This record gives sequence, C-alpha cells and structure tokens, in this order.
Amino acid sequence: MLVRDIGEQGLLERLQRFCPPEIVGDDAAVLVTKPGESLVVTTDVLVDGVHFSEITTSAEDAGWRAAAANLSDLAAMGASPLGITVGLGLRGEVSVSWVEELYQGITQCLQKYNTSIVGGDVVRSPVITLSITAFGQAHPHRIIRRNQAALGDAIVVTGVHGASRAGLELLLHPELRQNLQQGDDTALIRAHQRPQPRLDVLPILWEILHSFSSALYGRGNPAPTPPIPPSPHPPLSHSPLLTIAGMDSSDGLADAVLQICRASGVGAVLESRQISLPDAFNYWLTNEQALEYAIYGGEDFELVLCLPSLPAYELVKKLGNGAAIVGTITSGSKVILHDQNAKNPDQVLTLGRGFQHFSQ
Amino acid sequence: MLVRDIGEQGLLERLQRFCPPEIVGDDAAVLVTKPGESLVVTTDVLVDGVHFSEITTSAEDAGWRAAAANLSDLAAMGASPLGITVGLGLRGEVSVSWVEELYQGITQCLQKYNTSIVGGDVVRSPVITLSITAFGQAHPHRIIRRNQAALGDAIVVTGVHGASRAGLELLLHPELRQNLQQGDDTALIRAHQRPQPRLDVLPILWEILHSFSSALYGRGNPAPTPPIPPSPHPPLSHSPLLTIAGMDSSDGLADAVLQICRASGVGAVLESRQISLPDAFNYWLTNEQALEYAIYGGEDFELVLCLPSLPAYELVKKLGNGAAIVGTITSGSKVILHDQNAKNPDQVLTLGRGFQHFSQ
Repeated sequence: MLVRDIGEQGLLERLQRFCPPEIVGDDAAVLVTKPGESLVVTTDVLVDGVHFSEITTSAEDAGWRAAAANLSDLAAMGASPLGITVGLGLRGEVSVSWVEELYQGITQCLQKYNTSIVGGDVVRSPVITLSITAFGQAHPHRIIRRNQAALGDAIVVTGVHGASRAGLELLLHPELRQNLQQGDDTALIRAHQRPQPRLDVLPILWEILHSFSSALYGRGNPAPTPPIPPSPHPPLSHSPLLTIAGMDSSDGLADAVLQICRASGVGAVLESRQISLPDAFNYWLTNEQALEYAIYGGEDFELVLCLPSLPAYELVKKLGNGAAIVGTITSGSKVILHDQNAKNPDQVLTLGRGFQHFSQ
Repeated sequence: MLVRDIGEQGLLERLQRFCPPEIVGDDAAVLVTKPGESLVVTTDVLVDGVHFSEITTSAEDAGWRAAAANLSDLAAMGASPLGITVGLGLRGEVSVSWVEELYQGITQCLQKYNTSIVGGDVVRSPVITLSITAFGQAHPHRIIRRNQAALGDAIVVTGVHGASRAGLELLLHPELRQNLQQGDDTALIRAHQRPQPRLDVLPILWEILHSFSSALYGRGNPAPTPPIPPSPHPPLSHSPLLTIAGMDSSDGLADAVLQICRASGVGAVLESRQISLPDAFNYWLTNEQALEYAIYGGEDFELVLCLPSLPAYELVKKLGNGAAIVGTITSGSKVILHDQNAKNPDQVLTLGRGFQHFSQ
C-alpha cells in the first residue's frame, strides 16, 4: 500500500496513533506546562512547487505567508506567539539573496506581531523545503478548540473570504486585471501575498466573553446588553468564560465549518448572502464564482468562531471590516449552504472539495 | 553569490541577523516564558540521501536517530523534554509501512524518555524530508550554554566516543565485521543506529553542582569532599549553582570542544589517552584510526561539559561507563590535542574538519 493510495487524511489517521489522543485534532497541540499556563505548538512544511512557486510568490512573500500561516494557527487556538523555528532545506545553487529575502519576509511578518525567529536549521536538499514550528502561550481556559461548537451557536467570520483565491487567479492570469478597477486588483493580490493572521481578534474576544460570563454568573460588571437569555453553554469548571469553538479558514471557509462540525458532532446552516466578499466581486464575478472563491478558495486566514449569538453579535460589531455572522450550529451532522433569496437550492457541503495532498 | 559559495557557516552567519542576538549560538534556543521557567526549543531537518540512506538506516532507525538527536540537543541545554513535532515531506510512492516504521522508531525513542509526538504536518514532496522540533523545560539557572567555560575547568565527556562512526563503517563495509569479536560488531552498529541522548546525566549533574555550591556559599549541607579550593566561578546572581558550559558531541568531540572554546573565548588541551574508546578499538584499529573516529566521527550524542575539577571528578565517578575527564580549559584560543606518552606531536584542532553542508 502506497501513501497515494490512502491520501493525506488516510495517512494522518494512521499516524495519529503515534500521538497522545488528547492532543490531536486542532490547528495546534496544547501542552499544559504548569497550572495556569499552556504551551501551544503548531508546525507546517512547505515544499517548492507544491506550496509555493516562483511564478506567484517572491521569496519575501513566501516567507511572509509561511510565518502568517503559523501565527494564524496560534490565533485559531487562542494563543499569543512566543516565537518560531525555521528549518530550511536548500540546494547549493540557490542564491544567497533569495534565502535572505525569504528570511526578510518571515521576520517582517513576525515583527508586526511582536515575535521573532528563535532557532532553526539549514541543510542541503535537492528541493527547497521550509519547515516552520510556531509556539505560543495561552491561558488553559482560553484555548479555542474545534470540538466545542454547540446547538444554536452563531458562526462568526472575522473578515471577508475569497480575496486570497482571487489574488492568486490574478497572478496566474495577469490579463484578468484589466477587468478590475484600479486598486482593486492590487488589494486582491496583496491579500494573497501578505495575509494577516488575526491575532488582533483575541483580546477583543476575551473581553466580550468575559463581560458576558460575568453577567451570567454574577462575577464583576454586568454585560453591555442585558437581558441575556439562558446560555446553552454551561461554564467549564474553574472557567469564568463561555465556551467557544473555532479554527482558521486557511483551507477554506467550507473546510473550517465542516471540520468544526465533525469535531463537535453537530451540523450547520451557512447563509450564503451573509458571507462577506471583497467589494470587487460585485462587478467582477458572477454570484456563483464569488461564492466558490469565498467558501472553497482558502488562505484567507480569517478565524471561524462558534459562540452564543449575543456575544457573537457584539464581536462582529467591534471587529467591523467584513466580520459577520454567517450561519448557525444545528443538530445532525450536515453542513448546508442556504440562499435566503431562494435563487439556488440548498447545497450540502462535503470535505472532499478541500485541498488534499497525495491525491491527484 | 550562491549558497554553495559561502557554505553552511557563511549562510548561518547571515541568517542569524534575522534572529534576536541573545538566543543564537547554542544547541537550542531559550525563551523565558515566566520568572522561574524557560522554554528550550531546537529543530533539525533531515533529508533522504543527505542525512540518512536506506543502505545504512531502516525507517525505524531513521526515526529513532532523528528523535534522539533532538532530545540530545535538549539534554545539552539542561532541559527536560515536553514533546516534539514531526513535519514530514513524502512522495506518494512511498509505502505506508515505511512511514509507520519511521513513526514507530520516533515513538520508541520518545517513550524511553517519557515524552511524545505532540503535533505535525505531512505534505507531498519529491524528496523525503523529516523535520523535527523538540521543546523542553528548564530552570533558568540550570541552562547549559556554550559560552560559560572558564580557565581551569575540567572537560568531561559522559561516555565513549567513536562507536557510532565505527558502526557506520561496519554497515557500509560488512566484510569488516569478520575482524571483530562476536558481539563487538553488533554493539558498534547499535551505537550508530540507536544512539542514546544523555538526559539521564542531568539530575546527577544538578545534584553534584548543588552540593558543591552549597558547600562554597554556605547553603545547606557540606559537599562530600572538603576541603574545596576557591572556585574560579563566582555564582550568577540569584543562582545557587556553579556555572557550567557544554554541548553535545553530535558533530564530533573535536567540534564540541572547539565550539565551546570559541563561544567562551578560551582554549583547551585535550589529552588523547583520556578519551574513552569502545573496547573493540584496542584490537581492531590502530591508535591513529581509533582517535580519528573518536574525535571527528560524530553522532555519539554524549555530553561535553566544562566545570571545575572537583565536581567534574565527582560526576565522572557517578556516571561510570566511559565518562572521563579528557582535558582542561586554558587561556588563549587554541585547542590542542596532546599525547601524554609523547609518541605523537601536539596537534592544533580546527573547525574545518567537521561536516559542512553545501561545501563538497
């Protein structure tokens, strides 16, 4: 039996037997190092020709994107970055300036989020391989997992979807840029080349959850918008916070919702008209194409969060810039894409459309 | 300018500009996460055909060796392992059982040291690439750095050197096994295939250093072997421990001593007759060949530690099994290999003989 016969998911399922079961299944692993402190660790391997290409990605952009993807995994877990390590495999024929530009891109991204490269390894390899491990710190009661979504939760996206996929299309087919208004094309390309991990969401989220929890459980100040209906989320023991589920949309919005639902044993309805799109999609793409980019495109690196509707509403209001409630957690296991204008029939979304390594 | 023009050291020097200066230069990076606690992180990339090969290394052994090398880096820093992440690049044509055996070898090694795989990534790549990041925990005053060696320190090795290199030779040239007594060949091959990271040394080392410090500075019980001469090592502020320098001998004993001396701004004399060798070397190899394997061979994964002579002597006595004082830290910057029987002239060791990626 070869790796390609069982594909990425099949291989991962077999390899997870070698890991402690309690740490598998999220964007990153969580290790409790001391009471009151958790270490969050995530790792990504990027291979030249598979994950980046000189056609669409300069060395600097490849570096930024790799760093951003790992910081996004930390954000998706609720963790603040402590640092990253960079393992690099290279041929001797690569130019030194290419390597320096790669590191330049990595550190530019890290500096924006007040963190840095803290170690690494450089080795000879016939194919350029970039392996990044990021680690962060989180309060054990503020870790965001995939398996905590509950019936009735609102599904929040922290920004627009589809921009990165559209930017990639413009890089692959530069002639398409003539259909776009000035500035719109560069904004979409920038969304692809310089994605922003949403670490900025975390302090806002904690503040909102804390104020709602305080109101519900009588600790501290009342919540800003009483009266609050009974929550379906009993607090964890020792936890002053409402529970929350989430991950990032690096593999697409559809994938994120499907993964959360599978891990939580629930279903969802997504309202296609509520998904925030880049402005340019209005005049540039058909509704169908726009939705395709938004839900399957991937690499927007927004957070997809499931939480009770009142704090969800508060979060969307505070974040602005495309943050929206895009659906609801339901019973069952199906994830349904619904069009409130009823132009299109309901679609049942499946994991199969996501990017899978090894399968052709 | 190409990577091969400047070699591994040249590239690393350029890339270190992208890292905070205080964390570069040891086997692993140290991050202070809280007062009283440090996170130690190290990363290694292994490439098929460069770092392992099917001729000498089964998948299981490749996994064990990769895990052992990373745990050894933690041991060299004085840290206890918390876990590792595994990033794997693979062709679809690799057999699933090969991958499972690789993970089997990794987890066998980790289990022996009470730790585990806590995360990873599996991606498609034209060449098999294994990227491991290990992280551990250390008390900030018990971190072993390269730059703390001081004049008069004894240089301790925690075991024999040369066995791994000899084992590799036997794997590459099986006909050589006929020159060895039964059992000696398999022991050397095992030293190459299943190296043991010396995490077991740490609790013994801390106990000895603590008892000597207590005696010197009047805290707690007297040391076991009074009277103690004045130490050249004033304690670090807040530290109840004598200072110590060290690293592992993964790139060879000569390399370890040279790296420590360079980082500490000191020299050293190594006494060739004091370097512990596998018993089989006595009848199998010339003195010259044996010494060559021992100081340049690499991958023995012992610790090379520099500390005052009395605790050094105590440590060697407690460890046994080839642990020895093999030299002394001197002023200047030269590392001299001396033969006390004066058969051979003194040699000045240089870094040039170590394994360098990119250079041919």
